[in-house]
Amino acid sequence: MSSATDLKLRPTIRLKPKSQRRLLNGYPWVFSNEIEVTPGTKELPAGTVVRIEAHDGQSLGTAIYNRLPLISARLLSNNAKAIIDEDFFAAILSQALSLREKLFDRPYYRLIHAEADGIPGTIIDRYGDTLVLQVNTAGIENLLPALLGALDRVLAPTNVLLRNDTPSRLQEGLECYDKVVKGQLSGPIKVIEHNATFFAELQDGQKTGWFFDQRDNRVLAAQFARDADVLDCYSFAGGFTVQAALAGAKSVTTVDRSQSALDLATMAATENGVLDRCNFIKAEVFSQLAKFAQEQKTFDLVIVDPPAFVKNRKDLQQGAKGYRKLARLAAQLVNPGGYLVIASCSHHMDIENFAEQVRKGLLDATRQSRLLYTRGAGPDHPVHPFLPESEYLKLQLYSLD
Amino acid sequence: MSSATDLKLRPTIRLKPKSQRRLLNGYPWVFSNEIEVTPGTKELPAGTVVRIEAHDGQSLGTAIYNRLPLISARLLSNNAKAIIDEDFFAAILSQALSLREKLFDRPYYRLIHAEADGIPGTIIDRYGDTLVLQVNTAGIENLLPALLGALDRVLAPTNVLLRNDTPSRLQEGLECYDKVVKGQLSGPIKVIEHNATFFAELQDGQKTGWFFDQRDNRVLAAQFARDADVLDCYSFAGGFTVQAALAGAKSVTTVDRSQSALDLATMAATENGVLDRCNFIKAEVFSQLAKFAQEQKTFDLVIVDPPAFVKNRKDLQQGAKGYRKLARLAAQLVNPGGYLVIASCSHHMDIENFAEQVRKGLLDATRQSRLLYTRGAGPDHPVHPFLPESEYLKLQLYSLD
Repeated sequence: MSSATDLKLRPTIRLKPKSQRRLLNGYPWVFSNEIEVTPGTKELPAGTVVRIEAHDGQSLGTAIYNRLPLISARLLSNNAKAIIDEDFFAAILSQALSLREKLFDRPYYRLIHAEADGIPGTIIDRYGDTLVLQVNTAGIENLLPALLGALDRVLAPTNVLLRNDTPSRLQEGLECYDKVVKGQLSGPIKVIEHNATFFAELQDGQKTGWFFDQRDNRVLAAQFARDADVLDCYSFAGGFTVQAALAGAKSVTTVDRSQSALDLATMAATENGVLDRCNFIKAEVFSQLAKFAQEQKTFDLVIVDPPAFVKNRKDLQQGAKGYRKLARLAAQLVNPGGYLVIASCSHHMDIENFAEQVRKGLLDATRQSRLLYTRGAGPDHPVHPFLPESEYLKLQLYSLD
Repeated sequence: MSSATDLKLRPTIRLKPKSQRRLLNGYPWVFSNEIEVTPGTKELPAGTVVRIEAHDGQSLGTAIYNRLPLISARLLSNNAKAIIDEDFFAAILSQALSLREKLFDRPYYRLIHAEADGIPGTIIDRYGDTLVLQVNTAGIENLLPALLGALDRVLAPTNVLLRNDTPSRLQEGLECYDKVVKGQLSGPIKVIEHNATFFAELQDGQKTGWFFDQRDNRVLAAQFARDADVLDCYSFAGGFTVQAALAGAKSVTTVDRSQSALDLATMAATENGVLDRCNFIKAEVFSQLAKFAQEQKTFDLVIVDPPAFVKNRKDLQQGAKGYRKLARLAAQLVNPGGYLVIASCSHHMDIENFAEQVRKGLLDATRQSRLLYTRGAGPDHPVHPFLPESEYLKLQLYSLD
């Protein structure tokens, strides 16, 4: 933790000439090629809190520095004399909390969405009195005692889990680990969204256990579920399935290749009293869609919310083909006058490209359509205005002739 | 009206070599430079129903043709033998109606949104038993008897108004006129959105009298209005104002430079029982925002929903500056922890450019922010999947530090 004394000892990182412009314009990152490398910078341990200055000595703020990754410095504050301690994080957390309390009735949401909420590369998801952190920068890893102290002060959680197991940690020179640092966890935990209850597996599940980003989109899709035969593909723990059933679906067919995901979805369907209208199928989605086509099985509402097909830039062309094929396979199962909901959470797939693949897939399926909604992640996943490319989630809802 | 006999007489428009690809790929328009000009095509009256064929004679569908505008042919059907009569339009209207009835409890919406709903360049707005049409193509102007007949059959409206007074009609060689073709209209008409009642002036007002496109966005903004001091700029007939007041705003200050718009907004505030919390100011918005800044007046939620600053491509740079300035002026009035809602309905301003101007404006105002929502027009303004550029409305909601 830093203090007034630490402030005097805070190392300085100097930018190359003319490299300060983006920081001054609100951008929160400095790339490795924008920094003057000196014997001093080479010796700084990964994640050191530094003062950033322009080549002419103009002070630009306080950042965490790591010479290993491409994004070498991430701004913590525009103030080069900011003390980075428990108080610093408590102020950030209070502000983030106050926004979420305005947005949601119940304490189930993403509390901190990285840069947009002021904590670089770090997410914190809240499940009632349980918090799950994912730290993707060496700087915040070093500052964990201060951050955890601030969480105790602002939220007093019963349980705190570190899900520090993402590949991006390796680029920061960090190890991967999961660790309960407060309280204890056992078995699935409840998640309450709108009026539905779900179950998440925090320790072994995907991401931090639940995809809060689709909360509003699940309700949006459910608007079209009344009296409908619904197909929910890549269902995970049943988010779209249960909302569709609660909205009055005649039937919901739920497909996922993971039995543990289907078990959580079944628990949720039971808890919400809609199990009798749900039919769970353990299968790989592309094959199952082809099988339904062969059987001439159709639906009034088809939802496909796959995992990212594009994990990195070089997969873009192949991934694009995947979305096009998925759109075709899904569209051919939609009854005339029915609806298709299709999503992508691939960071590298922008909305224009995604929309293009979907309309090509619709054309391949010889279906005419209207695009009714284009949506992103919910408001607990805010976008840093200077990192618009961080808007990763895209969902489109089409009505099909 | 066409018939089997007309079908034999239907003229054919032939495309230049290799110009058929876009039509085959789902695009609904043919540009003048893609068409083989012959003595015959020069003599076709504006708006003739034609058969479209590729250069090699492949049949591409039925379209309306007008050699005057850049967009010379607009597809009506992929079937070159489609009979374009009352039945044709009745089928389109029934489908559009069925979608709206799924989306809305009450009959107040855009019923036909041009190409996306299958009627090129034509919009139909529904205010209960009153319909307002705006026809922007010579082809549909010629087919009005069939379209009006189909409207009678599908919706049996009491009143039908043609608001055929847009500048784009001139490019089609059409005259501008307003005409009540059925029933009669006098004074403002009611519009019901969610649980609020508004008033629209159909004959003398802007567009068709009401902006249905912001319906859901008015409720979205109102989420942040509880106990707030709200500023609604470019209020028009009070859409955002009344929803904010109904959501529990402490006060709403409503600014528009048009007295008739403020009169409608006042009627709506009265009708919804919120007049006591509303304060109407007749003023030009930029000056009024500067005046508030001078008086150090601030608000918890500021909404700015201006008319299009960019009317055509050459205004783009100037218009962009306008949005940047508006964002700055509006942001500086937002209390810490408050919200800014800013919209653009400029067709030529894409979302990336708009977002860039807004974040520059926020920077000019030295305000840090989170982008919580990016939204478009409501689902009664569907997007033709092959005309993504027709997605004209953009709204962003920011929380400000």
